[in-house]
Amino acid sequence: MKYHKIPDETIRRMPMYLRAFSMLKTEHQDTISSIHLAERLHLKPPQIRKDLSYFGAFGTRGIGYPVSSTAKQIRSILKLNITQKAALIGAGRLGAAIAEYPGFSMFGFDIAAIFDNEPSKIGTKVGKNVVEDISKISMIRDLDIHLAILAVPADAAQSVVDMLVGCHVKGILNLSPCYLVVPRSMKVVTIDLAMELGTLPYYM
Amino acid sequence: MKYHKIPDETIRRMPMYLRAFSMLKTEHQDTISSIHLAERLHLKPPQIRKDLSYFGAFGTRGIGYPVSSTAKQIRSILKLNITQKAALIGAGRLGAAIAEYPGFSMFGFDIAAIFDNEPSKIGTKVGKNVVEDISKISMIRDLDIHLAILAVPADAAQSVVDMLVGCHVKGILNLSPCYLVVPRSMKVVTIDLAMELGTLPYYM
Repeated sequence: MKYHKIPDETIRRMPMYLRAFSMLKTEHQDTISSIHLAERLHLKPPQIRKDLSYFGAFGTRGIGYPVSSTAKQIRSILKLNITQKAALIGAGRLGAAIAEYPGFSMFGFDIAAIFDNEPSKIGTKVGKNVVEDISKISMIRDLDIHLAILAVPADAAQSVVDMLVGCHVKGILNLSPCYLVVPRSMKVVTIDLAMELGTLPYYM
Repeated sequence: MKYHKIPDETIRRMPMYLRAFSMLKTEHQDTISSIHLAERLHLKPPQIRKDLSYFGAFGTRGIGYPVSSTAKQIRSILKLNITQKAALIGAGRLGAAIAEYPGFSMFGFDIAAIFDNEPSKIGTKVGKNVVEDISKISMIRDLDIHLAILAVPADAAQSVVDMLVGCHVKGILNLSPCYLVVPRSMKVVTIDLAMELGTLPYYM
């Protein structure tokens, strides 16, 4: 099921809501009001109500959102109710850190394959995977993986992406500080650490 | 000089503009229209015009934005026209990757100190710095550092942040997947890799 006309910014906040509801569940809280949720997430209550209302009315006035079922609904909206396999391209320092990043499992992600072009890395174990030669990247298609995490040098990123297009990858989390040219059907989220840090001095 | 009432979302996009203008400069382009800039950044032209207009009218109708002077202006607005020193807390895999991340220099960031609590890491060299014992974290104040990058396990993050408050740190780039409680005077940007990846399956 596709939901149309929902702003990207709303979709960007949905995993934040999912994490909050998941944490509330482990804290054995049954309901939460948009006001308390907003405090927790440093957002404004109307923003949260508007975001969640795009997907149907979840909450009850005066009571709030039921924690367990809302978590389940968001998980299903984001298609995180099934294990999502991802391929990691780049087994350098950043790639290795990502391979062992503990946060992925909460969202049901599974790093199912790792690739690099460096002979010294191919065949070594990183996290739970053995690093494969990038020349075998078509494995991604065979393994039915549609997500990739890119942790390669900026000057190699575009050529890797071109290969991923051929492997039917549909979503890329890009950690290389560069723009990627992708077909319209492919969604890219770029995390540029320097750019994120770049906003902070303004506030100081 | 402080500019008030400027939305955080605008500030978030400013480093993106700065990177684009910096790249255009290396490409020896003298001017760029908001339309072409928008294409490059996958944004909408009115968005760009609105963002930049908060800081004064930069562009000329029909000609566009002058690349070199606009880059300089944005750099100055973001206080990136001076070298901004940052402390890195956590010298694990992710910390080590950050210490050698090539993208920081474009924005004038300098990782000036690294701390960890792991005896095996203290005294080793990571990037250009020797890892210091976290017990010496007050060095941050002596070195006049006001930015910190947090790459510690989630369960250690809050206690480190409490120390950073005491060191007069004013901005934190948080890479631990957790919420941080900070005084109002401190600005935190959290990058949660799993959360970013979490939006992609929705679009598939």
